[in-house]
Amino acid sequence: MELASVLEGFSRRDWKTDPSGTLRFAIVGAGDWARTQALPGIQSAPHCELSVIVTGDKSRAQQHINGSEQYEFIDYQEYDSGKATELYDAVYVSTPNGTHLEHVRTAAVHGKAVLCEKPLEATVDRAEELVNVCSQQDVPLMVAYRMHTNPSVRRARTLLQEGIIGTPVQVVGNFTVDLLDTFPNPDQWRLNSDLVGPGTTLTDIGVYLINTTRFLLDASPSKVTAWGKSPNEAFDDLPDERTSFMIKFDDGVQGSFIASQNAYSDSQLKIIGTEGSLNFEPAFQMETDLTVERGGASAAFDSEWVNEMTEEFAYFADHVLSGTALYADGEHGLVDMYVVDALYEAIESGDPILVDSRKLA
Amino acid sequence: MELASVLEGFSRRDWKTDPSGTLRFAIVGAGDWARTQALPGIQSAPHCELSVIVTGDKSRAQQHINGSEQYEFIDYQEYDSGKATELYDAVYVSTPNGTHLEHVRTAAVHGKAVLCEKPLEATVDRAEELVNVCSQQDVPLMVAYRMHTNPSVRRARTLLQEGIIGTPVQVVGNFTVDLLDTFPNPDQWRLNSDLVGPGTTLTDIGVYLINTTRFLLDASPSKVTAWGKSPNEAFDDLPDERTSFMIKFDDGVQGSFIASQNAYSDSQLKIIGTEGSLNFEPAFQMETDLTVERGGASAAFDSEWVNEMTEEFAYFADHVLSGTALYADGEHGLVDMYVVDALYEAIESGDPILVDSRKLA
Repeated sequence: MELASVLEGFSRRDWKTDPSGTLRFAIVGAGDWARTQALPGIQSAPHCELSVIVTGDKSRAQQHINGSEQYEFIDYQEYDSGKATELYDAVYVSTPNGTHLEHVRTAAVHGKAVLCEKPLEATVDRAEELVNVCSQQDVPLMVAYRMHTNPSVRRARTLLQEGIIGTPVQVVGNFTVDLLDTFPNPDQWRLNSDLVGPGTTLTDIGVYLINTTRFLLDASPSKVTAWGKSPNEAFDDLPDERTSFMIKFDDGVQGSFIASQNAYSDSQLKIIGTEGSLNFEPAFQMETDLTVERGGASAAFDSEWVNEMTEEFAYFADHVLSGTALYADGEHGLVDMYVVDALYEAIESGDPILVDSRKLA
Repeated sequence: MELASVLEGFSRRDWKTDPSGTLRFAIVGAGDWARTQALPGIQSAPHCELSVIVTGDKSRAQQHINGSEQYEFIDYQEYDSGKATELYDAVYVSTPNGTHLEHVRTAAVHGKAVLCEKPLEATVDRAEELVNVCSQQDVPLMVAYRMHTNPSVRRARTLLQEGIIGTPVQVVGNFTVDLLDTFPNPDQWRLNSDLVGPGTTLTDIGVYLINTTRFLLDASPSKVTAWGKSPNEAFDDLPDERTSFMIKFDDGVQGSFIASQNAYSDSQLKIIGTEGSLNFEPAFQMETDLTVERGGASAAFDSEWVNEMTEEFAYFADHVLSGTALYADGEHGLVDMYVVDALYEAIESGDPILVDSRKLA
């Protein structure tokens, strides 16, 4: 394998089924992420059209969204009662974690395809109910892991399968963000355990480290351990302002990670194998630069031209329109819920926790 | 603080006392590291002179060393019995870990200053005896942590103290080497638990991650946990062909690390603070490139021109000749022995281990 050429054969959308038609979206929740990332993602993705915006404050949302006259704005009660269902085929749910279930249930009852932000819900029980509801109503459900459709990550996954770094041995990574700098309000939902989950860092950003490693290795976590620490008073109700954790995967790979919602923004994920390494740096901050090393030589792929959200919506629409199975599906998303739950149990008990001792759907 | 200028004020040898005289060295153990790294290090360092080489196989060593006629070659029995003591003032001990004690004892009895490779010994008990022997004979003892005199690391330490990244929050790092590729013999001392210690990866390379973090943060480990795994039969007697581990430091910083003696060579150490990050990449492979980030801007320092071993010997000779206290001394080296011992206990028991519950010298 010529190292210099491994990234040349790069295929931007290796998942394309090229269906016909357009998928019309309702965005549920018009928060910062939805407005600044998801909305332009839908607008720029093939086969996608944004038609409806569900929000608790229509006039504020209309003010904050350019070209708002193109969209139908409805509130949550109207959404629940079925208003404007004729205008959309699918929903993108980007409300706080602990409210996903009710909004997904509404979509499922109306027969709409669901793209639900990660993590699935604030608790395991509610996440399981969410998956069941979609299954019972027979609507497609995908969890919005944007790394799955990131071309650098997809290419790396193929290279790993082809043995570019030999056998994967260990993983190391970090994801830190400065939440209170981005959103200076200490009353935000990411600091409210009813809305975010048992903690904030593992549920909101740790899941990138966990899920991307799972996806790249095509392996499942079998055992975890974690420490948490919350020195800042805004994190008083949460055990993991800072968290360090380790994961054993079922293929023998071990990973060590750190994450924090209250530190300088930085992200990296590195997989070391017997014969080389794969390094994403930055990894999760809407830019995912990949360096592959083998035998002392290296090849780099700069992802600057990629809009992750465009890729995610393009994949979702393509697969829903063609009736192709979605990945990540609800079962896949539940595994992360079990892993994160085990990590919080480890933080609380101080003991390593077997993930496979938990109920797997 | 102007980020672009933080690395300009860089002082190569901020520890200089400028003594007069020359320190004449005996190298104890003429293995690969001593011949290819330590020997040229002594030759190129100010105030240093190599005069004696202690080896189990004089003719082989003479064959492998250029200009061997300049040096006196003696065997271990001759070293022990005091031959050629008039030719050297200090010893550099680079034999297998489990033999440090006897060679350091000989040097101490002969009143020679000691620069002992890390870790101090194969076991805690023997390391304590080694430190006691030097103390009783009143000879200077320094543990050869080459990162302490690495200019990138020293500069980073000062920058950390000055608050360049705000308050340090978390540390992440890795050190992997391909031992059987470098030394294809499965009977080597690094795979023999009598000579290397309870395991090989933590004792031989994990200690770089532990000790460099200690040095940079000026903090002590208080709690550790670790997992080990040895799939390759050459590592059958050792628990840590691969190891992942976490360390809590007494200043509240948490670190997550991976290390392996049987993987693709790679090293990195990153400290994330509230306002920036310090990243050594590579970190421990005789090249230590430093990138400092703060407020989205970054400054890089390329260490290519630095010979770490020259720096180490220059520091040691300077301080021994001027009678200045050595750092790292034996007490400092013992702390790593306790940390590594606690990590092996964690691997064996599966439980986190309090480092401060152990006897600290």
